[in-house]
Order: sequence, then C-alpha cells, then structure tokens
Amino acid sequence: MSTAWTSRYAQRTKVLKSSAIRELLKMSQKPDMISFAGGLPAPDVFPAARFREACQRVLDDNAKHALQYGASEGYEPLREMVARHIQRYGIKAKTENVLITSGSQQALDLIGKLLINSGDRVLVEAPTYLGALQAFNVYGAEYVSVLSDDDGLRTDLLEKPLRSGPKFMYVLPNFQNPGGTTLSEERRHELVLLADRYGVPIVEDDPYGQLRYEGEHLTPLVVLDRENLRRDDGYSLGNVIYLSTFSKTLAPGLRLGWIVAPAEVISKLVQLKQGADLHTSTFAQFVAYEVAKDGFLDEHVKLIRKVYRERRDVMLAALKEFFPEDVKWTHPKGGLFLWVTLPQGMNCQKLFEDAVREKVAFVPGDCFYAGNGFTEEGFRHFRLNFSYGTPEQIREGVRRLAVAVRHQLHELSPVHA
Amino acid sequence: MSTAWTSRYAQRTKVLKSSAIRELLKMSQKPDMISFAGGLPAPDVFPAARFREACQRVLDDNAKHALQYGASEGYEPLREMVARHIQRYGIKAKTENVLITSGSQQALDLIGKLLINSGDRVLVEAPTYLGALQAFNVYGAEYVSVLSDDDGLRTDLLEKPLRSGPKFMYVLPNFQNPGGTTLSEERRHELVLLADRYGVPIVEDDPYGQLRYEGEHLTPLVVLDRENLRRDDGYSLGNVIYLSTFSKTLAPGLRLGWIVAPAEVISKLVQLKQGADLHTSTFAQFVAYEVAKDGFLDEHVKLIRKVYRERRDVMLAALKEFFPEDVKWTHPKGGLFLWVTLPQGMNCQKLFEDAVREKVAFVPGDCFYAGNGFTEEGFRHFRLNFSYGTPEQIREGVRRLAVAVRHQLHELSPVHA
Repeated sequence: MSTAWTSRYAQRTKVLKSSAIRELLKMSQKPDMISFAGGLPAPDVFPAARFREACQRVLDDNAKHALQYGASEGYEPLREMVARHIQRYGIKAKTENVLITSGSQQALDLIGKLLINSGDRVLVEAPTYLGALQAFNVYGAEYVSVLSDDDGLRTDLLEKPLRSGPKFMYVLPNFQNPGGTTLSEERRHELVLLADRYGVPIVEDDPYGQLRYEGEHLTPLVVLDRENLRRDDGYSLGNVIYLSTFSKTLAPGLRLGWIVAPAEVISKLVQLKQGADLHTSTFAQFVAYEVAKDGFLDEHVKLIRKVYRERRDVMLAALKEFFPEDVKWTHPKGGLFLWVTLPQGMNCQKLFEDAVREKVAFVPGDCFYAGNGFTEEGFRHFRLNFSYGTPEQIREGVRRLAVAVRHQLHELSPVHA
Repeated sequence: MSTAWTSRYAQRTKVLKSSAIRELLKMSQKPDMISFAGGLPAPDVFPAARFREACQRVLDDNAKHALQYGASEGYEPLREMVARHIQRYGIKAKTENVLITSGSQQALDLIGKLLINSGDRVLVEAPTYLGALQAFNVYGAEYVSVLSDDDGLRTDLLEKPLRSGPKFMYVLPNFQNPGGTTLSEERRHELVLLADRYGVPIVEDDPYGQLRYEGEHLTPLVVLDRENLRRDDGYSLGNVIYLSTFSKTLAPGLRLGWIVAPAEVISKLVQLKQGADLHTSTFAQFVAYEVAKDGFLDEHVKLIRKVYRERRDVMLAALKEFFPEDVKWTHPKGGLFLWVTLPQGMNCQKLFEDAVREKVAFVPGDCFYAGNGFTEEGFRHFRLNFSYGTPEQIREGVRRLAVAVRHQLHELSPVHA
C-alpha cells in the first residue's frame, strides 16, 4: 500500500516503532480508567480567568503583532522575562542567551539536530526521559547509560563511560522523569568537574525545578559549571546548556519551552529553528507573557506546589497502606512522578495487563531505558504520575493497582501472597 | 569561544549560513523603510474581534482541554474541518489523512525528516520557496532544478531530470512563491502523468490556493493524480502529498499548517512530530477552530481577496508607471508576490544596496535558487510582496524602487538611462 511513499522513507525512520506509550495512553483514556500514565498537569489549576484577561488585553492592544509572523528567537519581552526569572537561581543569562522553543520537546529536537551525527554516543541516566530518547533517536544517537539511585545519577560510575567519548551528557537533576529522584549537591559538583575534565558538555533539562515540595533548592549545574570555570563573564562560555518550560507552571497546551546557552550556540539553534517551524506561535508567546507578568506566575506556582504536594502525599500514604512490603518506591521531593521497584522476578508489562483489567494505568519502566543491557532492569519498574488525578482518584487508583500487584505476586510465588 | 559546544556541532550544521534573508529583514524593519521583502499578511485584516470572542468561548467552555497536552495528530475537530474544507477542491481526505503541523514550515521539516537521506536529490522549481530549501538542506538534500515560466514548472524539461532519480518533486502550483506564477491545467496533467511514469512522487505545497483574484480555480495535483490512477478509494493511495496552512487566511502568528497524505504516511509523520514538538499548540488549535467555524473563514477569505487584489493592482499600475521598459514582471492571478526580471547584466544584490538607500526593500532573486548553475539567473530577479503594505505605501515604494533601478541602469550603460 502507498508504495510511492513507503519505499522512499529515509534511513532514520527505521528507529520509529509504533510507540508503546501512545498505545498505552489510548488505553488509559477509557472511561472509568484511573490513569497514572501521562505527565499531565492538573487541569483544575490552569489559571483560566487570568488567560481570559490576557487574551483580551493582547487582542485589544496588540493584535497586529500577536497574530503576525515573529522572530525565530522568540518574543523579546518573553525572552527577557525568562532571563530575569532564572537570575534567582544564579543563572546569569541575558536575553541573547534565551531561545523560545515550541515546548521543551522541540528544545531536545533542536539539540539533537545541532549535535548528533549518526552513531554519536549520548550519555544518559538509566532510567531517563523517554521523549529525549525519541528526539535523539532520529538523528542516529547511540547511548551510554549510567545507573542512578536515590541521589540521582551515580557519578562514581561516570569515569569509564566518559572516557568512551560521548558527545554530551543529558541529565535531569531535579525530580527526575521517571525516577522522581534529585541529584545531590555533592554529585552536582562532581558532575561539572568530570564534564570539564573529560571535555564532555552537559544538557541540563529542568522542567520541574520550581515544583519543589520539601527541602532546599539545589544549585543548577549551569551555575556550578561557571563557578568551577571561574568565569564572571555572564554566560559567554560554559559546558552546560540549560532547558526549561512553561508546560508545568502555566499550561502545556501553549507549547512554550526555552533553551539557555552561549549566544553563539543560540545563533546556530535559531537557524535550525527557522528551518523547523520558523518560530513558536506569536499569539501563545504574547498570551503567556501577559499571564505570567507582574508576579502572577510566582504566585501561581505556589498554588501548584500546594496542590501537587498534597497529591504526592496522598499517593505515598496509599502506597504504604495498600502495597505489599517487598515493593519499593521513591520519595520525590518535587515534580510529577514517583518510581516503583517490583520484587525480583516480577514483570511490569505483565502487571500492566492486570492493572488495565482493574482499570488503572501507569507507564512500564522498560520504556525509560536506552536499551543497552537494561531490559531486565526496566521490567522491574514502573512510573506513577501524581499531578493529574484528584486525591480521591489517586487513593482509589493505588488500591486497584495493589490488587494487580498482589495478583502478580501470587502468580510468581503462590505461597508468598 | 564556547569551544565545548562549537567543536561538537553535527555535520549537518555545515549547510547553515547566516541567512541573507534574516539580515535583509532586519534592515527592512528600520523606520521609514517600505518593505516588499517579507511574505507577511496585511495585519489590518486580522479578524481581531472574532479572535477575542473565540478566546472567550474556548476559555469559558473548554479551558481544561485547550490548555492541556493534546494528540500529536492535532485537535480532532480542526482536522475534520480541514478534511471537510478541502472536499470543495475535490480532495477526498478523511480526518485520518490530516496532520496538523506547527505552520507549513514544520510540514516541510517533517517531510524532509521522513524522506531525505543525505545525498538524496529533490526536484524543485527554479526559482522555488526558500523555506523549503532551508528545511531540506539540513537533511543533506541535493537538488535538481527545473526552470519555470509564466505557466509554472516547464514540464517539457522534466523527463531527463526525472530519469536522474530524484526522491520526490516539490512543487507550488498556485501563485508560486517567489514567481507568482500558476501551473497551467495542461501542465498539471502532464506532471501527474510523469510522476506516475517515473515513480517520482510529488509534494504539492499550496499555501495561497484560496487567494485567487482572477480566473478559475485549477484542479490540485492531488486530485488529478487520483483521477489518473483511477482510484475511487478516497485517499488510501496516491503519488501526491498536499500541504496548506491557516497562515495566509487566518493569521500566521498561530503557526498552524497541515499535511494531507495517505494514512500510513501520516502515521509515520505523527511519530516524527511527536519527537519534534509532541504536538502543535492546543490553545492555538482550539482558538483557530472557533474562529474559522460556521462559515466565518470563507467570508473572511473574501475580504482578504478584495484587499490583496486591490494591492496587487496598485503595484502592477505603479510598476507600469515608474519602471523603465526593459524591466519585466509577472502578473500573478493570486497569492502575495510578484517576480521582477532585470535586463541582462543588472544585478539584484547591487540594486538592493541602492534600494535600501532609497528606503525600500525586497528579496534578491538568488536566494530562491537551489544553487546548481542558477546563480547568474538568480541575480537577474527579485521578489516583491504586495500583501503587507497599504496602497499608498505600495505606490510610493515602487516609485523609490524605480529610482534605484534607473540608477543601476545608468551604471550599466550611461547612454541608455
């Protein structure tokens, strides 16, 4: 069928497989299903009234620009706002260091386009963000995976992989997706030292950094790197590119993310972005700026933190109440996810089938590994999202999931269960 | 500088050069400058009031979905609307044949990603749309250029280039960018026959098809192809992928385009899109649907046609009034552009410098050629946009441009001028 086209697909399409996640998500949209699968923000906290006002203002005052073509770099006031906003974390970026992207996913795609030749290795955490693997795969990336634990990426395992010459490291230091873990202060220092020593730069992905529910904010890698390099020259040099997004703090439906990088890296990325989609929706950028300005975003993030902390606590309490003892899970200090570890021998894919019968969904852990030798490890885990469901749904969902887990445990060892 | 990154750029970045167009556009934004350079719609016809209503309705009724993540394929009602809309042109597409993209530029990027291996040839018109070249270049495309004339692509020159085995043809049949020319009925038939005979499929880019100011609508290639193949099975097979956009009919700031293709091609493109930006802004899609629905878009397009036809006529009249006889230009029956041909020996880049001194801008013609042997040809042309300026600005801009042209003619041959 359609042979005129199918016989003409490029080599890179060979990495495309009908995404397991997509199929799962379809299943998780059935009625009565409680889904812990997506990474969706709670829709009940979207600031709809503020959006209404912002749209009115943008269209009353500025429709001619807000609906017109715009610069590939992004809407200047929004870029300035991002540069100002990240100063609080010690990131000394100027407007010229900020590129607005069509969501953080596009940031990953542009970085793959900029840096990856077919066959290049990328050093990733095991597990790591699935969307990054999807973005890098089409450029022919190979991977070096390094295990993480409760304190994030295990820097004690890094030297040998770094010696193998990866093009860059891709790291999520805060409330990692899918692990829910945070890279410790000590390991952050080690990581930037190693990056510098081995000349392997870092892409620091930080979509959840603002959503911390306990403990103190830790310094971003991009800041530690500059301190390590003793550079006081703002952001002109450095081994770290920093990514973040409005998807978790304002609304993912806007598709607004950003890249912070040295100006000459930004200028290359801008050229790639121009070929990719000319620029990100001007209208979405104008509206986001109007919504976020005058301190609204900071206040709104406080609300999100409150709502998500409660949901996380409900999920942790329900896991403790309903799950058998030999199942373990992470205790995320922020973000949207926690990560469950099944007892040796259990398989998350089999569990998934049982779970769907109980009308509850999650993402099986094997999706989050880059492949090389971690398949068995992947089967022992799954990811749970706690931002989307209401507290009642979360408790009920965990109860259902526990039924499936006990059923699987019984299959594994009838005496035990 | 920034050696950690610059030494790590991928091979494909070698095709990036600081875009001449970008620099030009910066220059054309100076105050007092009349710019015929961009491809910008007239901002005074943006339906701001309708957008205001639409935003209110979307945020009142549907904020939870409009601000949330959405499907990579696009917002279902919008896909249905597109499928319904193009029925009037005889394109028998179903919803499953429509992928919403982040502007038509992303459609070109995804098609490049899907089809082009480094070194593959793409058959393009000479001249052709610059943005397509930018999108295809990063995937390592080589080009076979075929000249066009007042009736569009010269199908009489096609057989030899087709025999050289291009991966696909990229063609803009209606009011071509930059030529302003329209592919004749006869040549459309020849083109689909040749595509079928040589097994070289067509990407039909049609951003301006609705903006016809005179004459009868001509049948799209995608329809002629199906008739030629005698296929009554809707859109399941075929040699043509069809692209269009809301950028010229609603607003480019939304960044909303679409691809119409066989379902299994769409499903591959969806996977590539997922890695590229997950999905196009949900909010922009919901708003566009609300704006366009209930026949509003059709009425609005009538207004745009009226406004742009007047501007085209003003430009044609001014060219006739002010330009010397041995300069020629196309008479576009629609779209946004016309194409000027200078007398032998004149150079559009030199003219550009003079023009900017006179405070008027255009895009030099050499940007629109894929390179191989057309550099001299390119220097003899430039592109003028007539949609953006007011009639007064258009007349005054052409007057200024004529001063620059006469100055260049004088340089070339002092006796003549």
